[in-house]
Amino acid sequence: MRIALDAMGTDLAPSAEVAGAVQAIAELDDDIHLVLVGNRSQIEAELEGTDVPQGRIVIHHAPERILPSDPPASAVRRKPDSSIAQGVGLHGAGEVDAFISAGSTGAVMAASLFILKPLPGVDRPSVATLLPTTGPPTVLLDAGTNVDCKPRHLVQFAHLGRVYMQDVLGVAEPRIGLLNIGEEPGKGDERAVETFGLLEADGVLDFVGNVEGREIIRGSCDVLVADGFVGNVLLKFYESVAQFIVNMLREEVAKSGAKINFEETFRVLDYSEYGGAPLLGVNGVTIICHGGSSPKAIRNAIQVAAQAVRSNMVKDMAEELAAVHNGGPSE
Amino acid sequence: MRIALDAMGTDLAPSAEVAGAVQAIAELDDDIHLVLVGNRSQIEAELEGTDVPQGRIVIHHAPERILPSDPPASAVRRKPDSSIAQGVGLHGAGEVDAFISAGSTGAVMAASLFILKPLPGVDRPSVATLLPTTGPPTVLLDAGTNVDCKPRHLVQFAHLGRVYMQDVLGVAEPRIGLLNIGEEPGKGDERAVETFGLLEADGVLDFVGNVEGREIIRGSCDVLVADGFVGNVLLKFYESVAQFIVNMLREEVAKSGAKINFEETFRVLDYSEYGGAPLLGVNGVTIICHGGSSPKAIRNAIQVAAQAVRSNMVKDMAEELAAVHNGGPSE
Repeated sequence: MRIALDAMGTDLAPSAEVAGAVQAIAELDDDIHLVLVGNRSQIEAELEGTDVPQGRIVIHHAPERILPSDPPASAVRRKPDSSIAQGVGLHGAGEVDAFISAGSTGAVMAASLFILKPLPGVDRPSVATLLPTTGPPTVLLDAGTNVDCKPRHLVQFAHLGRVYMQDVLGVAEPRIGLLNIGEEPGKGDERAVETFGLLEADGVLDFVGNVEGREIIRGSCDVLVADGFVGNVLLKFYESVAQFIVNMLREEVAKSGAKINFEETFRVLDYSEYGGAPLLGVNGVTIICHGGSSPKAIRNAIQVAAQAVRSNMVKDMAEELAAVHNGGPSE
Repeated sequence: MRIALDAMGTDLAPSAEVAGAVQAIAELDDDIHLVLVGNRSQIEAELEGTDVPQGRIVIHHAPERILPSDPPASAVRRKPDSSIAQGVGLHGAGEVDAFISAGSTGAVMAASLFILKPLPGVDRPSVATLLPTTGPPTVLLDAGTNVDCKPRHLVQFAHLGRVYMQDVLGVAEPRIGLLNIGEEPGKGDERAVETFGLLEADGVLDFVGNVEGREIIRGSCDVLVADGFVGNVLLKFYESVAQFIVNMLREEVAKSGAKINFEETFRVLDYSEYGGAPLLGVNGVTIICHGGSSPKAIRNAIQVAAQAVRSNMVKDMAEELAAVHNGGPSE
């Protein structure tokens, strides 16, 4: 398989990208071939001296770069030779099987929607984010891509998250939870009440009911469905509150003289472990990484992309969404 | 001043309530007189042997008790001799200046709305909750009382929170923040965008703009305004994630053999420190405590109620809300 990697996205581009690509080639399966998209001479300089088997990494020259300050949608149109437009273009043309970028999230989304298009039955593709829990991670949809969602959008998120967890995370029968402010049916705002009814009536989903704020961390579902407003507040709060509490503890531990490896203890909270956030619901595999991604985070994103390709995630989503869209599964 | 305390609300009633009352009389100002509302003989048994100055604690007999399983609104009507109905009734009749309960939140709210009534200009009274931050606590309104809020409700919450922080927490000029998913104006869902405009146009509020999930913990505002759906998710998530991280570290610390007093380190996260959550926007002082409140939490709630009475919080709220309601401050 061939995976395109935007080499110009991170704060340390293209150094972090190239290092992550080299690491992926060394450690992951032999069928992975990478296309680094970006400034050829800069990428070549970074590749110099590395030991990559012939042909496993090639460069696709893209001289332009979309900046964080560029308005996302128009930037994609006005900078057709940018690494993002070119990279998604390669995917749209079938020359690669997936695209990864740590550049402007808005631009990656805009290019993916415009070039790859949403899958039939998907009104609003959604960036899925993994939340650390006391058990395996829970995928949150939506984490800020879509606000003012209608109940039917939340049901679509449930299906997208379900297929993602099955195909990429290997969860056989993902449990779907609805983020809400009470456990019983009938709790919550109008959107939550109506969404509950739709999820419960869905013939495919294993809907486990409402999930309260305090239940999230206990891993009480595999797919957590929410409007992007509350999802985004939750995600950003999580990152900051974890840091706050770890810092408080760090001081106390230092005072006590104990030796504790915080990085190791809190590895579960390290987002780079998870390898980026996929944009689900488009006709392709698009993975979005943090601008501050390390080589390891890039390597992990390549692993996630490869797994999505290998498992035929997009085809599986298309089939599940088409069945729902047509009023039920075809089986 | 006279403060009525529901003696039958906590899981350990009336023992926690009586102990908290005795502690408050011993430690707080001499002008505080308490009326314990509940089963007279049970309360007398708990008071036996304590050393309370003559007349500082009196008992108002209320033989009935509203159970957590009782539907809140109808329970208040069907159990007029309950400690909650009697206690709020004393407040409504002007016999006490405040009411505190660790009983059914729904019943306390229903009784307060029914007997005390909302202040003019307040469509939806709101339970205000203090969130620990790296600095002084931030008050969150709404924390779950009201969902499907309209923008004008959120503006009312801002004023209620402002007066509370001024009068009870002693913050001279409270900074108002709007919980949102981006910093710039125009970010967020329809409700947030419209609320931003109303808050910005308000002539009284010190509106500091949108506050993202990651900013909450940094204490970037004194009053955080949100719809009760996201507020409730946030609050419950906060409690659980703090516990999650502490537990992760507790294991490591135990392994390392170090001695760390976790309770002391996380005192800032201990809700009992804050002394309950006030129901703001009714014509009276109603403080709601957790069912698991300790004597210390009850004592702190009495302190908060006394400060609200002493500072004329309700009068200040009525004046500020009336001014807003009539199209601007009268000054």
